[in-house]
Amino acid sequence: MSQPSNDTLHPKPITEIDAKRWLDVDVAGLEIGAAEYPEGPTGCTVFHFPAVASLHIDVRGGSPGINGEHLTLTNAICFAGGSLYGLEASTGVAAELFARHEYSTKWQDIALVSGAIIFDYGRRGNAIYPDKELGRAAVRAARPGRFPLGPHGAGMSATAGHGASAELSGQGGAIRVIGAARVAVFIVVNAYGAIVDRKGDVVRGNRDASLGKRRRAEDVIAETGSYDPPPGRARGVTQNTNLTLLLTDQKLDPLQLRSIARQVHASLARAIQPFNTRWDGDVLFAVTTQRVEDPTLDEVSLGVIASEVAWDAVLASFDP
Amino acid sequence: MSQPSNDTLHPKPITEIDAKRWLDVDVAGLEIGAAEYPEGPTGCTVFHFPAVASLHIDVRGGSPGINGEHLTLTNAICFAGGSLYGLEASTGVAAELFARHEYSTKWQDIALVSGAIIFDYGRRGNAIYPDKELGRAAVRAARPGRFPLGPHGAGMSATAGHGASAELSGQGGAIRVIGAARVAVFIVVNAYGAIVDRKGDVVRGNRDASLGKRRRAEDVIAETGSYDPPPGRARGVTQNTNLTLLLTDQKLDPLQLRSIARQVHASLARAIQPFNTRWDGDVLFAVTTQRVEDPTLDEVSLGVIASEVAWDAVLASFDP
Amino acid sequence: MSQPSNDTLHPKPITEIDAKRWLDVDVAGLEIGAAEYPEGPTGCTVFHFPAVASLHIDVRGGSPGINGEHLTLTNAICFAGGSLYGLEASTGVAAELFARHEYSTKWQDIALVSGAIIFDYGRRGNAIYPDKELGRAAVRAARPGRFPLGPHGAGMSATAGHGASAELSGQGGAIRVIGAARVAVFIVVNAYGAIVDRKGDVVRGNRDASLGKRRRAEDVIAETGSYDPPPGRARGVTQNTNLTLLLTDQKLDPLQLRSIARQVHASLARAIQPFNTRWDGDVLFAVTTQRVEDPTLDEVSLGVIASEVAWDAVLASFDP
Amino acid sequence: MSQPSNDTLHPKPITEIDAKRWLDVDVAGLEIGAAEYPEGPTGCTVFHFPAVASLHIDVRGGSPGINGEHLTLTNAICFAGGSLYGLEASTGVAAELFARHEYSTKWQDIALVSGAIIFDYGRRGNAIYPDKELGRAAVRAARPGRFPLGPHGAGMSATAGHGASAELSGQGGAIRVIGAARVAVFIVVNAYGAIVDRKGDVVRGNRDASLGKRRRAEDVIAETGSYDPPPGRARGVTQNTNLTLLLTDQKLDPLQLRSIARQVHASLARAIQPFNTRWDGDVLFAVTTQRVEDPTLDEVSLGVIASEVAWDAVLASFDP
Repeated sequence: MSQPSNDTLHPKPITEIDAKRWLDVDVAGLEIGAAEYPEGPTGCTVFHFPAVASLHIDVRGGSPGINGEHLTLTNAICFAGGSLYGLEASTGVAAELFARHEYSTKWQDIALVSGAIIFDYGRRGNAIYPDKELGRAAVRAARPGRFPLGPHGAGMSATAGHGASAELSGQGGAIRVIGAARVAVFIVVNAYGAIVDRKGDVVRGNRDASLGKRRRAEDVIAETGSYDPPPGRARGVTQNTNLTLLLTDQKLDPLQLRSIARQVHASLARAIQPFNTRWDGDVLFAVTTQRVEDPTLDEVSLGVIASEVAWDAVLASFDP
Repeated sequence: MSQPSNDTLHPKPITEIDAKRWLDVDVAGLEIGAAEYPEGPTGCTVFHFPAVASLHIDVRGGSPGINGEHLTLTNAICFAGGSLYGLEASTGVAAELFARHEYSTKWQDIALVSGAIIFDYGRRGNAIYPDKELGRAAVRAARPGRFPLGPHGAGMSATAGHGASAELSGQGGAIRVIGAARVAVFIVVNAYGAIVDRKGDVVRGNRDASLGKRRRAEDVIAETGSYDPPPGRARGVTQNTNLTLLLTDQKLDPLQLRSIARQVHASLARAIQPFNTRWDGDVLFAVTTQRVEDPTLDEVSLGVIASEVAWDAVLASFDP
Repeated sequence: MSQPSNDTLHPKPITEIDAKRWLDVDVAGLEIGAAEYPEGPTGCTVFHFPAVASLHIDVRGGSPGINGEHLTLTNAICFAGGSLYGLEASTGVAAELFARHEYSTKWQDIALVSGAIIFDYGRRGNAIYPDKELGRAAVRAARPGRFPLGPHGAGMSATAGHGASAELSGQGGAIRVIGAARVAVFIVVNAYGAIVDRKGDVVRGNRDASLGKRRRAEDVIAETGSYDPPPGRARGVTQNTNLTLLLTDQKLDPLQLRSIARQVHASLARAIQPFNTRWDGDVLFAVTTQRVEDPTLDEVSLGVIASEVAWDAVLASFDP
Repeated sequence: MSQPSNDTLHPKPITEIDAKRWLDVDVAGLEIGAAEYPEGPTGCTVFHFPAVASLHIDVRGGSPGINGEHLTLTNAICFAGGSLYGLEASTGVAAELFARHEYSTKWQDIALVSGAIIFDYGRRGNAIYPDKELGRAAVRAARPGRFPLGPHGAGMSATAGHGASAELSGQGGAIRVIGAARVAVFIVVNAYGAIVDRKGDVVRGNRDASLGKRRRAEDVIAETGSYDPPPGRARGVTQNTNLTLLLTDQKLDPLQLRSIARQVHASLARAIQPFNTRWDGDVLFAVTTQRVEDPTLDEVSLGVIASEVAWDAVLASFDP
């Protein structure tokens, strides 16, 4: 028998997000929208830059699912569940932006949309995925100012940790002001690794039910022999993936943006352990709105701060 | 006033392709489908590999539009018009494959679909693009055995040549048997350059209307000073792009497949001049079904033959 | 007046390494040699694989200095000081291997040598660099069994930390047995970041002389405004760089080797903070001798263990 | 018995090049030097930019041998024979530049040198290779104004064509003025493919001795079954390689320089057929001195002209 699917169920997008926690995001030029199918549960999260922003994409995972990877400018980025099927949500974002006045009258001016997805089927009994209608709904719901934390949007069925010991995580976010600039990080944590706090303790994932405690990856191996040998990876489809958006308004040239992308992406190996494994399709989108020029802020310092913000974002991804 | 668009016009997919010329394609494991919106005109062309095939993607253009670029296995490749909006067609391909029995009952086995698009708005007065429904229709129409040549499928509004001297081209294909193996090339020629035959003559594109003749790129520059200075390229969107599928059934390891991809992609600089320019988002998908093992066929020889097939395919892309 | 240089000083290679600490390295198929110019002080460290080994190189720094980057097999890897001039040492390694019987009689069988360098001029008043003679000497001195720890070989003038607060570091190494396989990591820590232990404390670098304590990068910025604004970076030359060799004997295919390279390289962001900055030219060489096949050891588990070994190696890089 | 080698023979660099043909090169900011070991015969060719120039490197071959690949600025580029051993010549170039006043007094200002090599052992009975001394000699001999054509410098033992039907080629060059800008191409043709003229005829390589005529690659395959099945490729060492320097003085940003590099590199598939095969380690160095700003000259037009210059350069590589 077939599973319930988008075709048979015709799910309706929900954009009134029922999050327990929200992040206030005061960054000019950014609108955030999320849309969900509780039937999954699965969803998508859209970051819309009505004025085009600069982009560098850093791919480090084993088999990521992306579209628009070669863009160096962006109007919108769409994170979604649904594995490769969920790329449809990002095309819905493009369709909806096109339908807006500014694009439909100047339609040779293409809306620049990138998308990336997570495999979020691990814990649910159906294949409902974020489709075109969900992407459109997320754009229509996009507003400046706040971001839902926890198992919402693209992170509805995200998990952290390996195999049977994985736990529900979600999407996290954090923001800091440094000098005249802002640095925000938004991340969907669907990690093959576990989430680690600044004391080095695992705070989500790798939970041994019988012992009632969470374990570091190296302890899992020491105690069980391996970090969850993989069933069902036969066809090379990534089953985890962490999607990160690093956003600033500091003016940066392409080389600076790329350098910060690498520095911050690597730094996430502190908060998610292990990170960038073969079964993660990790992607970081580094974006700047180019609206602020703080000459005292060098790119390494910006990267150091952003790395702390990124760690905060990971820690904010799961509901306590 | 807004242009007619998919949202307002609700175009209906046409899959009975009215091509003047067809290529017979006798390759086991391949089904080909095309679907069109005459209202554009625009369309998409789908190559479906019901049994998964091996893939290497070689990107050489300045700003290509792709999804699924990191896949090394493929179930389907979708070429489409519509610039970045046309990536939606490839998500329709995935949706339709999912709807089929084999995926909907084993839905953790994700359909592996890549897509790539051309900017085909240069000569038409609307923004109709290949959408999800068109992609679905192309899969449903897919059959083994033949491929429509000329301005059809993804190549409906494709052109060759620079600026005002561009001429309608389309999609081309050619196939040869070499030893026990088959080599086929399918290409959507939407070239910033012109099409050149084996005698070195321009046979499509760069046609000077007043002189009634076509010119080589270097002659255009010698006579006019430049190869069409670019208006409207402000936002970095590619306005041309040649999409190539190189398909064989010869067994190849990943390094061999990558080597042949490079060799054949470069060879197209003979048939399309100039090639791989900043305004082309050229992508070559190299695929093998791995069904034949001809030990006498080394990879360079295979590449040499495939390069001739590729040239034939380019020459077959436009209606005389 | 000119600085003393290799041309004027004719330094003599020293291969009797006067290290306080040594790592025992029991890996079949590996010989290690180091050679030093105390006049620098600078040096090089050679890892020789008499039977060819498999290689994947993961480059993550802003402006690395490498040769032989595209090799997928290796006979020797040479780490050296001297910035780009130090690549000469790796060519000396190739010259010396060639001079050996097996290559000089079968000289079409090219010795496969890669090299990578660090900028180690930050704290010394001369430009002596590891040259051809030093590379040759290191190969001649290469033996199985042990690796000198601390400011030796390529790490003689390596430092950790930013600007004036940088401290002498060196080269570190560590090894573990996991199942039937061995995992060793060797690293030259010449970090723009500081070295961090498993408790999160900075143990080398970023030492504020007036306070007598070391600071985390984010504290440096909080207290001083920035992480050392860069003088003298005008020409794009990297001034730090961490060079890592990850070595195992477990049998791995190219995709597995690449996956582990990424996972372990990212994990070093725990031990070196910040890591992969614009001013680091970080490179990780992942090598397997392919001598052991432990079917119970999956690649992520191997990467988890290797990441711990890598952290140990960083902590072993500096003399207490 | 060992072959004669650099160690045993101590060959003396010859920098009085006995070329039958020379190219006049009127490009400000460029000095050219060549040095040879007739004992090989083998040699190297150095392009020196006393004022630093902008660089983009485009790698397309199967297994190239390069150092300094990540540089985006350059003081010198060294092409050499000797397979991987010949990278030593480029380190000699760096050593000699260092020895000059400007670097030895400001030695933290590193000389930025890249090198690339060809495997030129196919037709000679020894392993003499371009070493440090030869690289130094080439820099000392470097002068503005002219470039030796044919089997000289790095091209002394270069060949074109497959296997036993390969013929001696060499290094070629050509230059054109376009508007206010200059475009020069220098190429060492050591091609697995054959050289093809603008009429489509093979003019060097693939010469069948018994028939006394040269054949196109596809004709070789049609008549003999394959394009020379490979003996001795076991260890992945490239046995051919075409090294190209594309030089202009037109002001270009990094994206423009990269775009032109790709366009021109691909265009060489017209002059060398097949091109970019698995057994070629093809590399193109695109350099601009940034001295001229001709606003009428767009990058595609520059690329079109440069592609014609590149073809001229290939045709000038072999002595008639």
